[in-house]
Amino acid sequence: VDTESMRFQPLPVELIKKTQSKKILSKSEIDFLINGYAQGEIPDYQISAWLMAVWLNGLTDQESAFLTEAMLNSGDTADLSEINNYKIDKHSTGGVGDKTSLILAPIVASLGVTVPMISGRGLGHTGGTLDKLESIPGFNTQLSLQQFSENLKKLKLCFIGQTKEICPADKKIYALRDVTGTIDSLPLICASIMSKKIAEGIDGLVLDIKFGSGAFMKTKEQSLQLAERLAAIAKLYKKDVCCFLTSMNQPLGKFAGNALEINECLEILKNKTEDYSDTYNLSLNLAAKMLHLAKYKSTMAECLEAATDSVRTGKAYEKFCQVAKAQGGDLTKIPMAKNKTEVFVEKPGFIKSFDVEAIGMTCVLLKAGRKNLSDVIDPTAGIEFHYKIGEAVDKSKPLFTIYGSESNLFEAAKSRLQNCVKVSESTVTPEELIWKVF
Amino acid sequence: VDTESMRFQPLPVELIKKTQSKKILSKSEIDFLINGYAQGEIPDYQISAWLMAVWLNGLTDQESAFLTEAMLNSGDTADLSEINNYKIDKHSTGGVGDKTSLILAPIVASLGVTVPMISGRGLGHTGGTLDKLESIPGFNTQLSLQQFSENLKKLKLCFIGQTKEICPADKKIYALRDVTGTIDSLPLICASIMSKKIAEGIDGLVLDIKFGSGAFMKTKEQSLQLAERLAAIAKLYKKDVCCFLTSMNQPLGKFAGNALEINECLEILKNKTEDYSDTYNLSLNLAAKMLHLAKYKSTMAECLEAATDSVRTGKAYEKFCQVAKAQGGDLTKIPMAKNKTEVFVEKPGFIKSFDVEAIGMTCVLLKAGRKNLSDVIDPTAGIEFHYKIGEAVDKSKPLFTIYGSESNLFEAAKSRLQNCVKVSESTVTPEELIWKVF
Repeated sequence: VDTESMRFQPLPVELIKKTQSKKILSKSEIDFLINGYAQGEIPDYQISAWLMAVWLNGLTDQESAFLTEAMLNSGDTADLSEINNYKIDKHSTGGVGDKTSLILAPIVASLGVTVPMISGRGLGHTGGTLDKLESIPGFNTQLSLQQFSENLKKLKLCFIGQTKEICPADKKIYALRDVTGTIDSLPLICASIMSKKIAEGIDGLVLDIKFGSGAFMKTKEQSLQLAERLAAIAKLYKKDVCCFLTSMNQPLGKFAGNALEINECLEILKNKTEDYSDTYNLSLNLAAKMLHLAKYKSTMAECLEAATDSVRTGKAYEKFCQVAKAQGGDLTKIPMAKNKTEVFVEKPGFIKSFDVEAIGMTCVLLKAGRKNLSDVIDPTAGIEFHYKIGEAVDKSKPLFTIYGSESNLFEAAKSRLQNCVKVSESTVTPEELIWKVF
Repeated sequence: VDTESMRFQPLPVELIKKTQSKKILSKSEIDFLINGYAQGEIPDYQISAWLMAVWLNGLTDQESAFLTEAMLNSGDTADLSEINNYKIDKHSTGGVGDKTSLILAPIVASLGVTVPMISGRGLGHTGGTLDKLESIPGFNTQLSLQQFSENLKKLKLCFIGQTKEICPADKKIYALRDVTGTIDSLPLICASIMSKKIAEGIDGLVLDIKFGSGAFMKTKEQSLQLAERLAAIAKLYKKDVCCFLTSMNQPLGKFAGNALEINECLEILKNKTEDYSDTYNLSLNLAAKMLHLAKYKSTMAECLEAATDSVRTGKAYEKFCQVAKAQGGDLTKIPMAKNKTEVFVEKPGFIKSFDVEAIGMTCVLLKAGRKNLSDVIDPTAGIEFHYKIGEAVDKSKPLFTIYGSESNLFEAAKSRLQNCVKVSESTVTPEELIWKVF
């Protein structure tokens, strides 16, 4: 027996063939693949073949956890150990008009719980918290982990983007998934989300898993599967975790589009909540659950009351203003669209359903979102939604208002939006926004 | 409608996602992928993801044909249009001791039918015609397509290796499959074989599809599937085609190993056929079928008689000598092994089965074959087989004789070979060598 063959030196192709034939990889095999890729020792073409095998054959929960850990260990984690306070974040799987982070984070921070929030950019039909914040002139999200920690100590809330130090393997793998059709894989999504969240140095995490026509997971069942896997990984890392399963069968709130959504959030934070009851209620519930995990109060009812009070008394608004100022943002200069146009229904009836992904793609067409990460965004572009599912609709009021700088894009957007809604002659019972919390 | 979006400009990732979700690719989509890859416009990592999707989800017959054509069109084809004669080749899926090309080609050419033979090297447990020929000192298989054509005009037979001009896309894709675990995929195997065979400029093709422990396809069913797909593609290209399904559950003939196999062929061509009845019979049948497709005689019986006559009268041997001389080979200087050793059964009985792949891998261990294309071969190394399945065996005669230059490899080879045979106490009925012809 030669000692050569006794060292752990698998060939990448052998590990690819294991996943291809539904055999289970060990922790050291997954570490070998991920570290090898992060360090440039295993080439793109072998990892992309492996990712496709994962997409088609899946991974076990245990393999997903090992993958999460390998990606986490590929970089630095935020060292928030000096902050003795409970630290909690929220993560949403994304949708159209999904702006709750900007409301719940100041609520929770205003009550003394620390919210270290590392957010992403919008891609495809979904929006991103960073893009929304950057529609506030001057708002800087590109802080170092050091500055992040300092801001958190001072204000209990800081919004930043993913830094180069955090999960570099995830960054490299995500870029490869994007060009190889392997984004929408449950174990890959789980590892990507959880490695970054664990790197934030949090104690607890509230997950808002979307289902429906505007979500990555189209069905309730898929969203439940994702939620269960994410929660399982969070628990392996001894993080407090709670999952909300919420509908993305219609856009959330009244606006989609970066500056438009910031304005919606500011209205809600100024306690002008009546026009935005879905955004407001979901934000309050998520905030209350974060407070509850942080043991701010012993019951959810008390936490919900505290969250409501924070908005009503202006504490949450004040917190948002402080944070915006600390990060260089000027809330008095949020840009407004130069042009707008309206879209009406063809015949009256009751709103039956929306094709929310197509609405999101219309936002991309209007340059409120991006097809590629290098695309430049029009912060003023977006869509206003005048009706919710179940409401009676006629031509007395527009269905959608389109906003943006480039009015030459409006005709294409109008004709697309016309096909994004179904109107019924009979009444329609809308589904609950929050399907499950566990 | 902008004209930009009306041009055919698919994104590679969209095509990957089609195969991933079992949607069917069009001809132009497959051309786009293969040409894009051959020309370096589509990167390795996208093609490897696509290959893995093909491995896991398959392709339709029509997609396989389009893939074959795209690979064929990526390079030059041998222009044999000046040769008005019928041109026919044989392709085998490979095995251990499978040397029929070297016998049937001179038989067929000696009767006036042209045999343009582009062969490969051995890889893994299977041997390759090029390696066998190159064990004849001076034999040059690296001719240009121009020289190939000239030799064919003069002698009706020429043996060459794949040139750079033929199917460069296949060459690039094969290398990628090798490192991404996607070699053993039916549609990829079909396209790789058929694109190269069609590039030869042939009119007809006889396929010898192996099944059994020494074949890539282990079961009869798998080999039949492969045969049917290969035949379907050949017919799409209006090539005459015939498939033999033959057993590789034992090595073919008496020897495996390059110079050893050349000697076996020369013995047969000199009409000393009695020790090699399986090699001889299969070669005769394949040769007769080639002659029959070429309409040399109107019945298979007549073609078989003509093939037998060619060997008996020495015409085939003479043809082989002429071709060897034309390509620089000196048949008087075939090297012999410096060392040999014998392997005996442990207890007497009847030969029940061989692990032919393990026997082939023992040849690799002895350096008769190669693990990597860069490995150097010992032309004298190999194994002699003294028994066939069903024969009574005892210790009076060795089971195997091992040959080679490096006797230090013999102990490991002996202990491996001991495990490559099963001996039964009761009599064993051997299967037919030729299972099906269609």
